[in-house]
Amino acid sequence: MTVRVAVAGASGYAGGEVLRLLLGHPGVEIGALTAHSSAGRKLGGVQPHLWPLADRVLEATGAAALSGHDVVFLALPHGQSAAVAEQLGGQTLVIDCGADFRLVDPGQWERFYGTPHAGTWPYGLPELPGGREALRGAKRIAVPGCYPTAVSLALAPAYAHGLIEPEAVVVAASGTSGAGKALKPHLLASEVMGGMSPYGVGGVHRHTPEMVQNLSAAAGGPVTVSFTPTLAPMPRGILATCSARTKPHAGYRELREAYGKAYAGEPFVRLLPEGQWPATGAVAGSNAVHLQVAYDEDAGRAVVVCALDNLTKGTAGGAVQSMNLALGLPEETGLTCVGLAP
Amino acid sequence: MTVRVAVAGASGYAGGEVLRLLLGHPGVEIGALTAHSSAGRKLGGVQPHLWPLADRVLEATGAAALSGHDVVFLALPHGQSAAVAEQLGGQTLVIDCGADFRLVDPGQWERFYGTPHAGTWPYGLPELPGGREALRGAKRIAVPGCYPTAVSLALAPAYAHGLIEPEAVVVAASGTSGAGKALKPHLLASEVMGGMSPYGVGGVHRHTPEMVQNLSAAAGGPVTVSFTPTLAPMPRGILATCSARTKPHAGYRELREAYGKAYAGEPFVRLLPEGQWPATGAVAGSNAVHLQVAYDEDAGRAVVVCALDNLTKGTAGGAVQSMNLALGLPEETGLTCVGLAP
Amino acid sequence: MTVRVAVAGASGYAGGEVLRLLLGHPGVEIGALTAHSSAGRKLGGVQPHLWPLADRVLEATGAAALSGHDVVFLALPHGQSAAVAEQLGGQTLVIDCGADFRLVDPGQWERFYGTPHAGTWPYGLPELPGGREALRGAKRIAVPGCYPTAVSLALAPAYAHGLIEPEAVVVAASGTSGAGKALKPHLLASEVMGGMSPYGVGGVHRHTPEMVQNLSAAAGGPVTVSFTPTLAPMPRGILATCSARTKPHAGYRELREAYGKAYAGEPFVRLLPEGQWPATGAVAGSNAVHLQVAYDEDAGRAVVVCALDNLTKGTAGGAVQSMNLALGLPEETGLTCVGLAP
Amino acid sequence: MTVRVAVAGASGYAGGEVLRLLLGHPGVEIGALTAHSSAGRKLGGVQPHLWPLADRVLEATGAAALSGHDVVFLALPHGQSAAVAEQLGGQTLVIDCGADFRLVDPGQWERFYGTPHAGTWPYGLPELPGGREALRGAKRIAVPGCYPTAVSLALAPAYAHGLIEPEAVVVAASGTSGAGKALKPHLLASEVMGGMSPYGVGGVHRHTPEMVQNLSAAAGGPVTVSFTPTLAPMPRGILATCSARTKPHAGYRELREAYGKAYAGEPFVRLLPEGQWPATGAVAGSNAVHLQVAYDEDAGRAVVVCALDNLTKGTAGGAVQSMNLALGLPEETGLTCVGLAP
Repeated sequence: MTVRVAVAGASGYAGGEVLRLLLGHPGVEIGALTAHSSAGRKLGGVQPHLWPLADRVLEATGAAALSGHDVVFLALPHGQSAAVAEQLGGQTLVIDCGADFRLVDPGQWERFYGTPHAGTWPYGLPELPGGREALRGAKRIAVPGCYPTAVSLALAPAYAHGLIEPEAVVVAASGTSGAGKALKPHLLASEVMGGMSPYGVGGVHRHTPEMVQNLSAAAGGPVTVSFTPTLAPMPRGILATCSARTKPHAGYRELREAYGKAYAGEPFVRLLPEGQWPATGAVAGSNAVHLQVAYDEDAGRAVVVCALDNLTKGTAGGAVQSMNLALGLPEETGLTCVGLAP
Repeated sequence: MTVRVAVAGASGYAGGEVLRLLLGHPGVEIGALTAHSSAGRKLGGVQPHLWPLADRVLEATGAAALSGHDVVFLALPHGQSAAVAEQLGGQTLVIDCGADFRLVDPGQWERFYGTPHAGTWPYGLPELPGGREALRGAKRIAVPGCYPTAVSLALAPAYAHGLIEPEAVVVAASGTSGAGKALKPHLLASEVMGGMSPYGVGGVHRHTPEMVQNLSAAAGGPVTVSFTPTLAPMPRGILATCSARTKPHAGYRELREAYGKAYAGEPFVRLLPEGQWPATGAVAGSNAVHLQVAYDEDAGRAVVVCALDNLTKGTAGGAVQSMNLALGLPEETGLTCVGLAP
Repeated sequence: MTVRVAVAGASGYAGGEVLRLLLGHPGVEIGALTAHSSAGRKLGGVQPHLWPLADRVLEATGAAALSGHDVVFLALPHGQSAAVAEQLGGQTLVIDCGADFRLVDPGQWERFYGTPHAGTWPYGLPELPGGREALRGAKRIAVPGCYPTAVSLALAPAYAHGLIEPEAVVVAASGTSGAGKALKPHLLASEVMGGMSPYGVGGVHRHTPEMVQNLSAAAGGPVTVSFTPTLAPMPRGILATCSARTKPHAGYRELREAYGKAYAGEPFVRLLPEGQWPATGAVAGSNAVHLQVAYDEDAGRAVVVCALDNLTKGTAGGAVQSMNLALGLPEETGLTCVGLAP
Repeated sequence: MTVRVAVAGASGYAGGEVLRLLLGHPGVEIGALTAHSSAGRKLGGVQPHLWPLADRVLEATGAAALSGHDVVFLALPHGQSAAVAEQLGGQTLVIDCGADFRLVDPGQWERFYGTPHAGTWPYGLPELPGGREALRGAKRIAVPGCYPTAVSLALAPAYAHGLIEPEAVVVAASGTSGAGKALKPHLLASEVMGGMSPYGVGGVHRHTPEMVQNLSAAAGGPVTVSFTPTLAPMPRGILATCSARTKPHAGYRELREAYGKAYAGEPFVRLLPEGQWPATGAVAGSNAVHLQVAYDEDAGRAVVVCALDNLTKGTAGGAVQSMNLALGLPEETGLTCVGLAP
């Protein structure tokens, strides 16, 4: 039995990555592909790496094209998913790769996006406590942001085991695909290559409340996150360095045990052997997350470094993993933990 | 039925890419992994992207480890394959990713490598005329070089159809993985990033006789190739720009028809639609080859540009494709024409 | 005595590079800075590397801002220089970094740009035969294109000495700044990093007639150039690989002598010692040109490889060098042959 | 009057950068150049960007070559400077670009380097309180590490004004030249390009005690620094993200005032206008430091981001700036605050 899948936003990076993964997924048939400004063009001219779909014509995003599918992935700019989702029946599995349905607190949504809150959907991060249960049989899924995926997986075990204080500090480097295909001067190759820069530091980043939401749930109480994202000269990947003061009873052994336990048996999250550090290159194109934990005794802090591919586990891979759970397929179908290196 | 496969040189880039592909190949079981200076180490410390094999221990390259497999891939420095291959029985399929058995003319081998010629094995480029036939049931396969793969696919159709003169000019840019994992100063990241440089220009490059051999066969007469390789600041990919004077009767239409005919139905070689140019980014990690043909009327030359991934179609993917043919498996098993982009 | 200099197009890459060099030039005072869409902004927000000018406000490009200067650099999109130049008096030295006044043949201009030919100005490549003489005291200068600078310097000596046949083949890799700051999808960092692609191959490139013009002059007869430009994942630099069949009497010794003689004493062009190859990294940010010559006996061709910085010697550095000559200043004032590496 | 300068370690990245700057310094004459494994080679083969010195022959590092100069720069591996410095007379200005003489506390040196402490020399960071005074007329100077330069400049004003708590958290990305020219697998281009990775996280980094030393001095009491360095796919640059909890009375206004005051009039350190963030690309090849300050009210933290070129202000530029002060020359001689961009 195959399910019929449509992708809205097929011309962008997230939509393209969903399609790349679906092309290797044995249980799906790829249906409508839609876009906004590229509607009417062949996909091959926009996404030349997706050769088997090169002659498919992009349709305009909307119910006309998207209805009649078993699954619809939305890879749209923030704020546009609700209107599309409403037009799709309740029996369609709708998976939103955007931010619209991630936050529980309407006030936080309005603070950062300035529009009315669209609602809250089951959250597509199976590795969090209770994460898988929320997704089985779901008909609506909010795919986590790429930064929150990295940070939540990096710090949730330490919070769940009560090993660190509630004030976390995160500095993360992201590849440029995380910023999408928008034609903005700071995303030009000439500007990006050969340099690093922060972005969105000036106040609090839009992704912070999602991290706070996940980590507060893990900690069972309020957590704050000081988050600084930076743009790195690479197309893909997130390297998140996360730290917090350890509680008095917590040292290296307790940290290592907590992470070992939290991710034992997880198909996509790996605590690296001692002495080995995560590198985004090792997870490129894969759904894998590599983690390492250190204890800085001088500063009294736990430091957790996490590497993942922002487009795969951070977006499209996480979305496919959640789809598998919602449809009752084996969770790993169509996904790999093997990276493309070098 | 699965075949049992060993990889000699599993710590290098070519060996690692063979393993990456074999991990996604449904018909193989991965047996011994061998190395030279890394023998005794776990693979995970050397190739962290190959997670499912992370705990495998590298053995010393030699018959002790390699015998008893159905297939053995040799990914060794040039000149070392013959000694290993001799120790493996004639019923083992031995696939040499090195240069040792590619050349037909012993004189050319000795000219460029300075050692006695080891012999000539069936040549693993199925897309050349007669290429598939030579591989079915073969027990020894010489995998083509990455540059010769690109250049042969780019120019063979024009030669086979008698459209261009025998003097070809090729300038190709390669990613750094093509130079292997050797610790040489010019391969350091600080030297490579942000710049382009030629290498091995001073006389004739080692890969030239292999190109000449393939193109002369296609042309049915002697061909010369002026070949300049350059090193580009990217880890993977070859972009080869190949040209030759057109014969009097040959223009754009004849060229396009010849290439369309030559590669119609090929699962991995694609003549792009008119107006679209190959980019190495679109074929990264895939076995795909993207080609485009132009006719420069002012200069009277055909210009063919070819993009492929040097480690995949240019080495390990070509090797697996040939293995599939030799074993009687569907040629595309375990391979994809979908690239990892961006 | 200082001259007062204005720069039109100060927000772009070429204009920014002119300013970077002028800030280190002891004989100039920087006057008006103009722009189009950035007019009204402070320069520091657009060109943060030009700290001493950070608080300067960009004016609208036009005579109002530009008149009253001794020298005006025009770094404008092709086709816009003539209208601005007309408004500036004949006593102002106007240096056009665009293509408008480079070509001698109006037919070639119209063929490639589709607009009426604006005229022909003295050509700013002092290292060509007669090049310096044309520039002394000039009031109008056409700065050569970056590709034609590289290719003309690479092949002119061989043509001037009658060592090669008239059919040249050139493949050149350029950094992305050569394509300007335009917001085009193929110039996004996510698209460029990690890959190479050709551009503008489909017919004949706009820069070809300028190369043909220079090389035909050197050869004393018609020359053709088959030119394929490629885009490399680096912000700056051109590496041009240029070749042609050698004439019967010409071999390695004749080639080396011709180049040694041609560039002996040149402050910015260097024939590298035998065995050393040019790398764009070694000339970054400098006005230097590094060249090496090879003779491929098998193919009967001379191969010349040339590295320069497209923004410096290829545009702004060449412009300042020509300005120095026109003003009677020492030619090297404000320029360096020392690159920024690594 | 010119001073005669020798450089020990002229084949490495730090030594090469010292030479690049000295070639543009009007008050020096370049004397002996020494190296270890490259002794006997011409500099042009090792540092092709330093054209004017291309024919200089590298001598063996030692008193024979280095004595008889007014100034000697040591750009040697850690632990080798003391033996060389001893052989140079007390009237020679010796500037050590290595770590040997930076730390005041012998215990910290021995903890991190495992050898006896060589001593403590005047510290070459003029922008710290009292920094200039310590350098005037000095005959021995310890050049700060690149990371400590960035972190000390980023946090010292907040500590000096009592605005932040003593527990600082720093995550910094560095270009690969910071790791030197050593032939290590993780520094190969194929490994570095397209990815980020941390290094030296497992315990406390060697550079941490130098940061602690500087910041404790600024704070007038003990400070701790949790420091995580990461390796970015770029040849040059450091982007340091530094944060600490603010004290109750300190908010955005107090922070901005403190930094504005601290660096007003500094020729090389710039607090960027509000809303603009530092990028390493804007300071490449220059002695400039760009800083920005933010106040994260939710997390109660001050966040300071600092960009500099690790080889220039972070090593060789800082060294030349200190030399100027020691010799009584204008501090900015031979240095620029203009970066090479794009």
